Amino acid sequence: MSAEAFLTDFHEVATIGATSGNGVERQAATPEDGRTRTWFAEWAARQGWPVRVDGIGNMFALLEWTPGAPFVLIGSHLDSQPLAGRFDGAFGVVAALHAARTISEQIAASDPPTHNLAVVNWFNEEGARFPPSLMGSSVYAGLMDQEEMLAVQDLDGVSVRDALDGIGFRGTDERPEAVGYAEVHIEQGRRLERESLTLGAVDSSWYTQKLDIEVLGEQSHTGATAMADRHDALLGAARVVQLVHEVTQDFEEEAMVSSVGRFNVEPNSPIVVARRVHLVADLRSGDPDIVASARTTLIRQLSTLAEEQDLRITVRDFDIRPIQRFPENGVELAEKVAATLGLGIRRIQTMAGHDSVAMNSIVPSVMLFVPSVDGVSHCEREFTRDEDLVSGLHALTGIATELIDGALTTSTAAKVGEG
Amino acid sequence: MSAEAFLTDFHEVATIGATSGNGVERQAATPEDGRTRTWFAEWAARQGWPVRVDGIGNMFALLEWTPGAPFVLIGSHLDSQPLAGRFDGAFGVVAALHAARTISEQIAASDPPTHNLAVVNWFNEEGARFPPSLMGSSVYAGLMDQEEMLAVQDLDGVSVRDALDGIGFRGTDERPEAVGYAEVHIEQGRRLERESLTLGAVDSSWYTQKLDIEVLGEQSHTGATAMADRHDALLGAARVVQLVHEVTQDFEEEAMVSSVGRFNVEPNSPIVVARRVHLVADLRSGDPDIVASARTTLIRQLSTLAEEQDLRITVRDFDIRPIQRFPENGVELAEKVAATLGLGIRRIQTMAGHDSVAMNSIVPSVMLFVPSVDGVSHCEREFTRDEDLVSGLHALTGIATELIDGALTTSTAAKVGEG
Repeated sequence: MSAEAFLTDFHEVATIGATSGNGVERQAATPEDGRTRTWFAEWAARQGWPVRVDGIGNMFALLEWTPGAPFVLIGSHLDSQPLAGRFDGAFGVVAALHAARTISEQIAASDPPTHNLAVVNWFNEEGARFPPSLMGSSVYAGLMDQEEMLAVQDLDGVSVRDALDGIGFRGTDERPEAVGYAEVHIEQGRRLERESLTLGAVDSSWYTQKLDIEVLGEQSHTGATAMADRHDALLGAARVVQLVHEVTQDFEEEAMVSSVGRFNVEPNSPIVVARRVHLVADLRSGDPDIVASARTTLIRQLSTLAEEQDLRITVRDFDIRPIQRFPENGVELAEKVAATLGLGIRRIQTMAGHDSVAMNSIVPSVMLFVPSVDGVSHCEREFTRDEDLVSGLHALTGIATELIDGALTTSTAAKVGEG
Repeated sequence: MSAEAFLTDFHEVATIGATSGNGVERQAATPEDGRTRTWFAEWAARQGWPVRVDGIGNMFALLEWTPGAPFVLIGSHLDSQPLAGRFDGAFGVVAALHAARTISEQIAASDPPTHNLAVVNWFNEEGARFPPSLMGSSVYAGLMDQEEMLAVQDLDGVSVRDALDGIGFRGTDERPEAVGYAEVHIEQGRRLERESLTLGAVDSSWYTQKLDIEVLGEQSHTGATAMADRHDALLGAARVVQLVHEVTQDFEEEAMVSSVGRFNVEPNSPIVVARRVHLVADLRSGDPDIVASARTTLIRQLSTLAEEQDLRITVRDFDIRPIQRFPENGVELAEKVAATLGLGIRRIQTMAGHDSVAMNSIVPSVMLFVPSVDGVSHCEREFTRDEDLVSGLHALTGIATELIDGALTTSTAAKVGEG
């Protein structure tokens, strides 16, 4: 396998939708997303691998040794947040392509494996333009409804359906049947960096939930309404942002994270007191009880705030994602492969959502992390060193090789895993 | 003069762009604004008055008794804020049309007056879609540059030029030369209501200024960045909103008002810590020293905030509008007309900006207020009783009658005014 060819491809993809700050901007179903998709399709075509595109824009490049046998899927996503880093998602897809090529070369010289292999580029993992995130993998896994997701609109009123049609990537192909899944991704945290480890084997995901919050006041003229006569939705919403931040301080450091990332003001005119603010709070923790406790505190505080400022505040739970445990034998497989490669590894929880979390709900899945400098992500200065990318590629190749041989899907292998 | 015909017309205009909550939405150069403009043009045409439209979309209906003589302008604006009340602006334009018709009937039976008369509908008084406010009257008065204003874009990137072209109201007509101005408007405050008075004669405007504030943090993944590692622009901006609110408490009650009405978050994604918030603070007081003192306090507090939260906060002064005094003889003229009509009147400062403030910078101007229930405005429940609207119409008619006779523009009249 050629580490150099992999790095060349990775850095080539990073030029698509490149920003001046060394990042990329390729939000789902934009022309930039379309260009990486064409890059993916052309790369696969050069290997002679047929590419399927399903009804929600997921792309699958197929390595079918045994016609009709199910597939181990490996991959990630090529879409990005606005002004994002160039590693998140794209690393996992390019690594999967190169892992598949290496495996293909190995298979050519031996017997066909138990399962076929497919490289996947999931649609809209980020959910920035079209919430919710993990859209493509969740539709694949049956966790979200395809028709409902195609109807989701961006802030300009463009639907997923029209946006995918616009870039020519709403397909009609049958989905390959999955029997297992593996993904490599940058950590988006600094635990590996702190411990000078090259790999993390994800053993579980954090509990996450969002609160959809609406603050309703009364619209009035900023220049002609006495302060005492106002019901300023923005002033109330500003306090909500603080409360969502402060609630994390009720718990141990790093036990939970929270944030408000989406915040829309109406009518948003410089001389009008706002009548409505719509915002989304995001609560996450490794412990569901912590999220539940924070949620209870917030709902009580918001009710008090509404009374104090004579506003109406409504709160709706949504996008609740329980803790998912990744199979123990998958974690052990990652540890075994790391040992073979001489790479340091630890078990790790993922705070962030990943396509692997959706896939793990239907098939045994393995999720690997490589270190991310300073733990930053979703911003242009997100960075992972070339040698860590290459280590991640090698580990993914090793794991995928075992998976297509039935490592997590045959009874014997499962027993080894449980040992 | 027929109060009934006036009220019928006023309530007819209120059906254009009507909202379900009894208000109107006719933002500048939208199709709804276009429909009120067509209504205005057709009404004037039925009286046989030629209508001119200038390069920034101001409309003038001309009553020209003496060809070549300058004009007294009376009017206001037909555009509105989003989800606004039906009185703000529209009352003044419909009242001016009816005042002009009454005067026209009186003139028909006597000698032509010293000056001609024109009813004006100013473009974009509100500035909600296209800031700054008072756009049409300020261009007319030479306070703003027409080309610069035509290039202003709304949040969708549509320019004033294209929006005016879109509704067919970017004209090429010569502007009538003004020699005086009068306007009647709802108070947008509750001083008249509190004192049970029907009229207010504006003697000065409040000092106003805006602060353009940018809060810069660092974009990161909400679900994978420890709280301690974040530089959350939205959290900082939430504190800015509170500080802008709290600074009014340094002064006597009702001595100043402040607000943040425009507030845009980037990237505004539910799972991304914001990198930038752009907001506009508005500070107003009858005393410029109070605004200056509040501004100094805020700049100091914002600097501390930036340091505490490791953010970058920039502040830029703009849209500074010094106190304007309306001519003393104009206020006395209003008081005289009120006495003749048997209406209670007081002198009053305007907290809000009005087209009359722009016009007063170039010609003697008279600004009248009628009561507004609860003092609310820029919202659907804005309300003024029919009898107060009719009293305002009568007062405007009386004042305009005196103005075209040279009340504020000939030396004798000026002497009476100064007495």
